[in-house]
Amino acid sequence: MSRYIRPEILSMSGYVAGEQPASDSDVIKLNTNENPYRASEKSYNAIRRVLEFGLSRYPDPRAAEFCEIVGRKYGIDPATILCGNGSDDILTILTRTFVGSGELLRLPYPTYILYRSLAEIQGAGSELIHFNEDWSLPDNFYSAGENLRLVFLPNPNSPSGTVIPKERIVEIADNLPCPLVIDEAYIDFADDSCIDLAGRHKRIIVTRTFSKSHSLAGLRFGYLVAAVELVEQMLKVKDSYNCDTISIAAAAAAISDESWQVENRKKIIATRNRLTEKMRAMGFNVPDSKANFTWNTRTDINVRLIYEYLKSQGVLVRYMNYPDWGDGLRISVGTDEQVDKCLELIRQFVEK
Amino acid sequence: MSRYIRPEILSMSGYVAGEQPASDSDVIKLNTNENPYRASEKSYNAIRRVLEFGLSRYPDPRAAEFCEIVGRKYGIDPATILCGNGSDDILTILTRTFVGSGELLRLPYPTYILYRSLAEIQGAGSELIHFNEDWSLPDNFYSAGENLRLVFLPNPNSPSGTVIPKERIVEIADNLPCPLVIDEAYIDFADDSCIDLAGRHKRIIVTRTFSKSHSLAGLRFGYLVAAVELVEQMLKVKDSYNCDTISIAAAAAAISDESWQVENRKKIIATRNRLTEKMRAMGFNVPDSKANFTWNTRTDINVRLIYEYLKSQGVLVRYMNYPDWGDGLRISVGTDEQVDKCLELIRQFVEK
Repeated sequence: MSRYIRPEILSMSGYVAGEQPASDSDVIKLNTNENPYRASEKSYNAIRRVLEFGLSRYPDPRAAEFCEIVGRKYGIDPATILCGNGSDDILTILTRTFVGSGELLRLPYPTYILYRSLAEIQGAGSELIHFNEDWSLPDNFYSAGENLRLVFLPNPNSPSGTVIPKERIVEIADNLPCPLVIDEAYIDFADDSCIDLAGRHKRIIVTRTFSKSHSLAGLRFGYLVAAVELVEQMLKVKDSYNCDTISIAAAAAAISDESWQVENRKKIIATRNRLTEKMRAMGFNVPDSKANFTWNTRTDINVRLIYEYLKSQGVLVRYMNYPDWGDGLRISVGTDEQVDKCLELIRQFVEK
Repeated sequence: MSRYIRPEILSMSGYVAGEQPASDSDVIKLNTNENPYRASEKSYNAIRRVLEFGLSRYPDPRAAEFCEIVGRKYGIDPATILCGNGSDDILTILTRTFVGSGELLRLPYPTYILYRSLAEIQGAGSELIHFNEDWSLPDNFYSAGENLRLVFLPNPNSPSGTVIPKERIVEIADNLPCPLVIDEAYIDFADDSCIDLAGRHKRIIVTRTFSKSHSLAGLRFGYLVAAVELVEQMLKVKDSYNCDTISIAAAAAAISDESWQVENRKKIIATRNRLTEKMRAMGFNVPDSKANFTWNTRTDINVRLIYEYLKSQGVLVRYMNYPDWGDGLRISVGTDEQVDKCLELIRQFVEK
């Protein structure tokens, strides 16, 4: 039956997400950067109100209620906002709008693996520009390049958790011949967002998700901010009703609850910094993370074996092996208790 | 900024969904084939249980819980099922898996307008085969044709509500050189599904949605059934977490509540048949509908004016004008009360 399939799809291997054990298992899950704390009760209450009203009707195709709240929060025009079914949907819409078959998408390396899969589905190529050793970007990241149609830059980056300073991002966007997508999935754990530039600098597009800093990975909601002229084109590409009534209401409530966000951020950052220190004390190389995970490497021990040992003990972290770069463990910031359990198991393994 | 956009996107007009008035308005909405009755309370209770557990974790990428229930219900292998964020997501995944730039998608005419937009986004063409006057399909619907990669056939069709008999569908699939997608969005109001053929006949793919017969348009959930080898390729194209935890749980509960479905179907069909009779009695041509809407045409009155009059009186129906075919009113089956209000307004207009 393979003759029915587009050759680009047949030849690609497909993005593989982190392992998802059954929701009722006891596994300590530090592998997909979920937030360990329960989302704002205001989100849950907003969902309960939707249930009273009912779900028979189609949702609002533009999620206007949400866009107005975000517009007020960041002082941006609601017409520059496009909502999606998780930021994966947003990244898919971006790729389909800007990158055609045989064209080129650029990304740093190593980074979120999905970008490459999105290019492959389009029949497009991807150009990987290696980070410098200190996780800064070389100047050729903004060189023109033939057929270059879109550039993805996650900030903070995964797996490193490192950030590119805002003035450097503007320099990159100024020099590029195409739009630059700043994937701010983890920005709420960092300091300096580019959301104020999106839609004003015509080539800067910022994407956000509710899966990490809002504890709503199970809900699927994300959005982007871009120039109105670009949003208007992307509207043709998105499914009409890509966001459901429940997620729109819950996301609107979540982003309105600032005190929950301040409190959550404080807890995650405190645990992250403790995790970083303890891992360094055990001999790991850990770049300063501005996200809700840390990237842990070392050359004297096979870290894959640590991943396997942790898994055997009921703790899932993410083992990543990037060809031409190296491997490491990406550990999500869980609760203090979860992180302590993980650290204790690693200590046992390392000191063995 | 248009130079950043793929030319295929720039030149297309984009699918326009039916009007969605604010959810708290008093408008009688008979324009997008929503179900006027509240979904099974078992769905709402399933959602409430998810809220207790929380939404911090990513959903199950394969929606295994749902697939097992559907597998048992229809006696099909769960591995032949793929779930999506509404059947629009399913139709998007299908198009992206099978149809590349410059290739061809075939559909009957007139039908669901979205199929054509999906081809355009892919940079693909669409070939429209006109229905016969009695809404049957001519033999050239299954002729081979160069570059033909995928055929869409909604059954029942929209706007007509008519069906193609199952033996004719098998004949079409036997003769086609590519997969045939039977879009069964409205099948629960008809008699004869092809779901038992999907995954067994290697070229027959069936899609379903929870927006119509399960009263869950606001939730976004749909699925397809196809040969395992095809599902495996489509998994590479779909977003990893395209269905959220809430919709998976609610859909699983909805499809398990058979008595709700039997009762709902009975009410919708009774109202549909009454709507058909009354419209015919007022001089409209109305094909026998097997869906939750009727298609109403006439040549002695400009039906667009009827649509406008209804809208001015707070009743929304769908006015459709198909080039080279003609125009008409597609009226969704609401409650008896809603349909009576609509019929009374039409009577006033027609007898004026």
